[in-house]
Amino acid sequence: MSLLWPGEERAGDLFSEAAYLAAMVRVEEAWLAATVSAGIAPEEARTPLAGLVSSGDLPGLAEGAEAGGNPVIGLVKLLRGRLDGEAARWLHKGLTSQDVVDTALVLCLRDVLDRVEDELAAQAAALVGLARQHRATVMPGRTLTQHAVPITFGLKAATWLSCLNDAAETLRRTRASLPAQIGGAAGTLAAVVGLARLRGLADPVAAAQEATTTAATTLGLTPRTPWHTNRAPLTTAADALVTAADTWGRIAGDVALLARPEIGELAEPGGEGRGGSSTMPHKSNPVLSVLVRRHALAAPPLASTLHTAAASYVDERPDGAWHVEWETLATLARRSVVAASQTTELLAGLRVDAARMRTTAEAAGADLLAEQRSLTDFVGGDVLTGTDAATGLGDYLGAADALIDAAVGRAHELWKDLS
Amino acid sequence: MSLLWPGEERAGDLFSEAAYLAAMVRVEEAWLAATVSAGIAPEEARTPLAGLVSSGDLPGLAEGAEAGGNPVIGLVKLLRGRLDGEAARWLHKGLTSQDVVDTALVLCLRDVLDRVEDELAAQAAALVGLARQHRATVMPGRTLTQHAVPITFGLKAATWLSCLNDAAETLRRTRASLPAQIGGAAGTLAAVVGLARLRGLADPVAAAQEATTTAATTLGLTPRTPWHTNRAPLTTAADALVTAADTWGRIAGDVALLARPEIGELAEPGGEGRGGSSTMPHKSNPVLSVLVRRHALAAPPLASTLHTAAASYVDERPDGAWHVEWETLATLARRSVVAASQTTELLAGLRVDAARMRTTAEAAGADLLAEQRSLTDFVGGDVLTGTDAATGLGDYLGAADALIDAAVGRAHELWKDLS
Amino acid sequence: MSLLWPGEERAGDLFSEAAYLAAMVRVEEAWLAATVSAGIAPEEARTPLAGLVSSGDLPGLAEGAEAGGNPVIGLVKLLRGRLDGEAARWLHKGLTSQDVVDTALVLCLRDVLDRVEDELAAQAAALVGLARQHRATVMPGRTLTQHAVPITFGLKAATWLSCLNDAAETLRRTRASLPAQIGGAAGTLAAVVGLARLRGLADPVAAAQEATTTAATTLGLTPRTPWHTNRAPLTTAADALVTAADTWGRIAGDVALLARPEIGELAEPGGEGRGGSSTMPHKSNPVLSVLVRRHALAAPPLASTLHTAAASYVDERPDGAWHVEWETLATLARRSVVAASQTTELLAGLRVDAARMRTTAEAAGADLLAEQRSLTDFVGGDVLTGTDAATGLGDYLGAADALIDAAVGRAHELWKDLS
Amino acid sequence: MSLLWPGEERAGDLFSEAAYLAAMVRVEEAWLAATVSAGIAPEEARTPLAGLVSSGDLPGLAEGAEAGGNPVIGLVKLLRGRLDGEAARWLHKGLTSQDVVDTALVLCLRDVLDRVEDELAAQAAALVGLARQHRATVMPGRTLTQHAVPITFGLKAATWLSCLNDAAETLRRTRASLPAQIGGAAGTLAAVVGLARLRGLADPVAAAQEATTTAATTLGLTPRTPWHTNRAPLTTAADALVTAADTWGRIAGDVALLARPEIGELAEPGGEGRGGSSTMPHKSNPVLSVLVRRHALAAPPLASTLHTAAASYVDERPDGAWHVEWETLATLARRSVVAASQTTELLAGLRVDAARMRTTAEAAGADLLAEQRSLTDFVGGDVLTGTDAATGLGDYLGAADALIDAAVGRAHELWKDLS
Repeated sequence: MSLLWPGEERAGDLFSEAAYLAAMVRVEEAWLAATVSAGIAPEEARTPLAGLVSSGDLPGLAEGAEAGGNPVIGLVKLLRGRLDGEAARWLHKGLTSQDVVDTALVLCLRDVLDRVEDELAAQAAALVGLARQHRATVMPGRTLTQHAVPITFGLKAATWLSCLNDAAETLRRTRASLPAQIGGAAGTLAAVVGLARLRGLADPVAAAQEATTTAATTLGLTPRTPWHTNRAPLTTAADALVTAADTWGRIAGDVALLARPEIGELAEPGGEGRGGSSTMPHKSNPVLSVLVRRHALAAPPLASTLHTAAASYVDERPDGAWHVEWETLATLARRSVVAASQTTELLAGLRVDAARMRTTAEAAGADLLAEQRSLTDFVGGDVLTGTDAATGLGDYLGAADALIDAAVGRAHELWKDLS
Repeated sequence: MSLLWPGEERAGDLFSEAAYLAAMVRVEEAWLAATVSAGIAPEEARTPLAGLVSSGDLPGLAEGAEAGGNPVIGLVKLLRGRLDGEAARWLHKGLTSQDVVDTALVLCLRDVLDRVEDELAAQAAALVGLARQHRATVMPGRTLTQHAVPITFGLKAATWLSCLNDAAETLRRTRASLPAQIGGAAGTLAAVVGLARLRGLADPVAAAQEATTTAATTLGLTPRTPWHTNRAPLTTAADALVTAADTWGRIAGDVALLARPEIGELAEPGGEGRGGSSTMPHKSNPVLSVLVRRHALAAPPLASTLHTAAASYVDERPDGAWHVEWETLATLARRSVVAASQTTELLAGLRVDAARMRTTAEAAGADLLAEQRSLTDFVGGDVLTGTDAATGLGDYLGAADALIDAAVGRAHELWKDLS
Repeated sequence: MSLLWPGEERAGDLFSEAAYLAAMVRVEEAWLAATVSAGIAPEEARTPLAGLVSSGDLPGLAEGAEAGGNPVIGLVKLLRGRLDGEAARWLHKGLTSQDVVDTALVLCLRDVLDRVEDELAAQAAALVGLARQHRATVMPGRTLTQHAVPITFGLKAATWLSCLNDAAETLRRTRASLPAQIGGAAGTLAAVVGLARLRGLADPVAAAQEATTTAATTLGLTPRTPWHTNRAPLTTAADALVTAADTWGRIAGDVALLARPEIGELAEPGGEGRGGSSTMPHKSNPVLSVLVRRHALAAPPLASTLHTAAASYVDERPDGAWHVEWETLATLARRSVVAASQTTELLAGLRVDAARMRTTAEAAGADLLAEQRSLTDFVGGDVLTGTDAATGLGDYLGAADALIDAAVGRAHELWKDLS
Repeated sequence: MSLLWPGEERAGDLFSEAAYLAAMVRVEEAWLAATVSAGIAPEEARTPLAGLVSSGDLPGLAEGAEAGGNPVIGLVKLLRGRLDGEAARWLHKGLTSQDVVDTALVLCLRDVLDRVEDELAAQAAALVGLARQHRATVMPGRTLTQHAVPITFGLKAATWLSCLNDAAETLRRTRASLPAQIGGAAGTLAAVVGLARLRGLADPVAAAQEATTTAATTLGLTPRTPWHTNRAPLTTAADALVTAADTWGRIAGDVALLARPEIGELAEPGGEGRGGSSTMPHKSNPVLSVLVRRHALAAPPLASTLHTAAASYVDERPDGAWHVEWETLATLARRSVVAASQTTELLAGLRVDAARMRTTAEAAGADLLAEQRSLTDFVGGDVLTGTDAATGLGDYLGAADALIDAAVGRAHELWKDLS
């Protein structure tokens, strides 16, 4: 809930402080279980942790987080205090704070990417519908603000869909490879290997690797070698979210523009006092587009910050570059959900004034067909005979239909069950 | 309180959601009173609003903010519902949402700048102390990571102070000119002028201007013509906060570096388990420096976003560029307070190992005095006779003392009561 | 000249590689003369350097610059080879590479700021003219893309002027305090003080300070203590240039929008095939606005890079943060000249279709006066009687005239000889 | 060649102005041939264009580029003037300026990516060598600037290699899908379809698609539907280049740090006066690392600009967002080559002081093994018996060897012929 970022509640609990806390607990639990499974910790240490911490613990943990520079020290202490026996003893053994923080960030990110994927599917469905429905809806093509040649609104929707297809592919690739982070104090797994050795296991390194694999798998993440100072997993995800934001911003920009009263070709979904003004009763502002554009303006610099951080990593854990990632990533992720949800709503209820599009196109017919005339003059002959003899606009749409089919076809490949 | 940005609680209520809500209410109250004072609204409309809204209203207002694109519509409705008679009728009359949002942002910003100024004063005091105390503490000057010529730690502190002096000047200039925003629906003040005319005032424009001036003055802000689409007041403030962040980052970078065990010339203030590790009992991490550096990495892109927004303003109120400013500014402002406070603590308790500095400098004496030797060879003569015959380091400090005096002197001009 | 940044030639030689080289030579010359004047170097060392280096030396110097990390080592060697006697011996004595690089950057920046100031003056003159000429040109005020209340184009021009006024003040403040950089190897002035001592001067520190002051004054820059690791002088200049870019972008955004055929209220200056298309003979693209907007999009991240660099300074000269500044600053500066020049041309020839503005406003009259009607209903009475009885639009302009006067008045204060 | 970005000449002609011009000519030639092959243009129109334009045409084309907003109008006019008959007539027919600009950008980008790939291969080879050679070279692991647990330099090299592996995968994916851009005036292919129809072809759309596919294939690019307003192809490439920059920055940061005299574990390759100072004869600055770090600081905001542009696309070609991409992309690309080349040189000649690493690690042994001791206390037993009984450091390296093997193995998969 935010007065400063209206619509923020659409992100719900995704990558919230509470979700992050719960994710950290899940990491500790998965690791504890994995060390038991690998024979490193005793069977009695296996215990569920889910109920031990609640959002009521957030203030205390947050306050304590500064002293250690991260919230894990306080969390481990708190959990140990609420556990008994072997579980209390073995909790967190073999991990370092960064393992817990990073894996929890990834878990939160995963839930965000899943939600964004759902929104993208809904958006793709809406765009496929618009592309098909408006296959023959002629409108002016505009370049550098001026009328160019005719297009159809179906093609515009297909172009938006093409952006969406690209963004979805990028996001899915990221989603599919989200890794767990387990490396120990300096990325060598020395503690867990050492524990395995102390516990007399025959192959301590193999046991440690078994534990890391098991923990990752339990959490639904990809096992991989420690990436303590290789931040590509996070920057790649951020880049993917920004690519999605570019798409939403690109769509919202067109809607905000075409919803201007002088153009009037599109309108946002109405209802519920949306788009009103505090003083002007007649106003119907394109609020969803406005709020989506807001995100598109703010998102790229957030990813840039994550890249600057990644490039600033030194040693086996850096002095600031790591710490800047957490809230930056969370902000980018939560806002992505908000903008995704707003774009879905925008597209699902988008109002298209096909008549106005045609009227404007016909009024601008001489300009929109100037290129065509120059071609006719060039080659000779008469291109205007066709299906749209009245204005000729419909005969100068080139491969628009084929381009629509291509975008829709690719969307069907990406979303098999798309209506 | 935040797990994702440890130390966030240092910002307290400054530029919080609750503070922003309270500021909006203050704007409405000041405007209502100003329209009464200017004879536009009737005397009965004057009423305090402070107690009418509480942080319990935040969730509802936040949820409602999306429909209108900003929280003002909901706030006005809520306030009117809790008022009676003329106050309810005249509330918000003459304003537009942007007036309330922008002026409230400025009020929150003002409180942040005041707090940052307090922190800067404390930092300046600490640096003046360090500069004086370590006027003769020789240490290696380092350039491009390598030993260069000798400096003193007093000079390093004076250099930090020089950054601080510049940042303070920039911040104060911004602070002194923070403007109220009152322009009405499209920046013409048409509504308030119209109301003054309808109420039969002789000079409606003068009355409107009187009201805007009074409201600004009441709020402790500078009256100025509407800046609805001229965002220099906000970008200038953001640039000033980033300039301060650069300073803090620059100091923290030196501390983090010189606190490395291989260098060991500085150490952070100790105590209270600060800088501990979740697994390594001996660790003493430079946590304050780390967290300050974090802010310095994230701050510039936030100001960049505000500039991109400012450059994207169109019409009499833009479609997204305005909305992106709010939380971006609040985030930058709150984090500035956190980093300011952390830097104050860092400098107040900074531990300087003067002996280690000298030991390292002496061990590197041949390199540190190589330039001096080349000068001696160049001119002839012997420069090594002086106050520091043993090593010569103290005789190759150039104008270090004068430079310290200059920085300290300028700080004394900026902070008259500096100890 | 650039295919990749059309219009780049408008920057001419300002902050070009050749200008930067010449500036470095000027710094060496000024310093050499200053050390003579201060009695540190012998009189025979004073010599003009201007003709010794030409742009033909650029390739060699550039290639050599990588080995030392900057071009000064090669330049000094080259100059010494072309000098004789005391001048060759004393050249560069007391300086470090950073002194030469930084002061040369500032000299180039100074020339850019002077040129930008000239452009701002021309822009202000154009805007004052537009504000006056169109004081009564009614047009729709637009907020969040929708019609709001009426404004005049004169007020819009005055709003643009208000942005310009702010930008000019910021730029002038920066311009007035551009400092020379003279600090020696680690910012202590040790070498020049040492030389003064070796040469038997009574007060070596005073002599060194005299030399630095003389050199700065000779170059037309402000003397100040070394700012080797305090980059506020550069970031402040960058912020000022971005503030100007915001203004130009904000103006260009309005022009590009209002030049759309469906709106048609503004048009760019015509002539010389400007705005044509490679295939569509009718096109008249708002090319100047487009190219100005381009700069406004790219400028904020460049300043952000400079701030990130400033915040990353460590030691007495950092390992990368310094080096990133040079071309970043030059790019920002040169593009600023290009955009300034384009904006001047845009404003000087801006075509205003006052009739179209009025037609659109009248057609939208019911909406544009909705707020006014609500006020009339609120207070009672009839606000429509006035100078513009036909449509009432002219009677709901509030304080527009006074706001125009304020912006024009402030411009006249800033530019005394403004027509 | 650049004084302002030393080392710039390493990029040679890659993505230079001349290369860009040549690429535009190649696009026109490929398209002309493709329209002939598809039966749209007559056979006589097929002609090589390569020799018709030289770098001597750059100034004229650059100057003319501003009027049309891009260089294509001038280029087409120039080429037509140097051609005869059908070739002159059919040149550029069916294309729009954006097709030529964008495809030429992609061609230049392709050459850059190929060169970067070569550098990555050389870097991987160097890192595989270092990882193997220093498998047993113990050094202190450092976290948050402080000593943590022991690592090996082989593991550090493997961690760098892991970053490189990720960056290489990302770059290759981008490289493999670089698309040609052919869409015509508004992305409908209307002109080429119209020409095919006028020329009496049976299936004009199929002929147009054949031409676009042929042209793309001729140029070695991927055919795809127009991406005039879907900029993911460019932002994805930019993100990949920044990911590589992060890697190089991360490596250079470690080198610059570990080359500090107080640490002294690494040194840059020597020779040829590299790393000298203009005044201090003893200096050996880590110049390559410094210059690489420079790029890593500047790169993320450049990609951010491209994302902001992508998100700002409106219509069928936007008013500024397109134009900002060209030089931004070229700058990012050329600097990537420079940094890639510098990193290759850095890694190929990196000097590792294994003895110093061990000495420091042994001196810090109590701290580095503190975690191990705590584990021993925790479990009981004695972990110190092993291969490294003297200090125990070698027995607390966990899975370091396995992690090295994993990184090396993945590099061997990525580069099959890696030595």
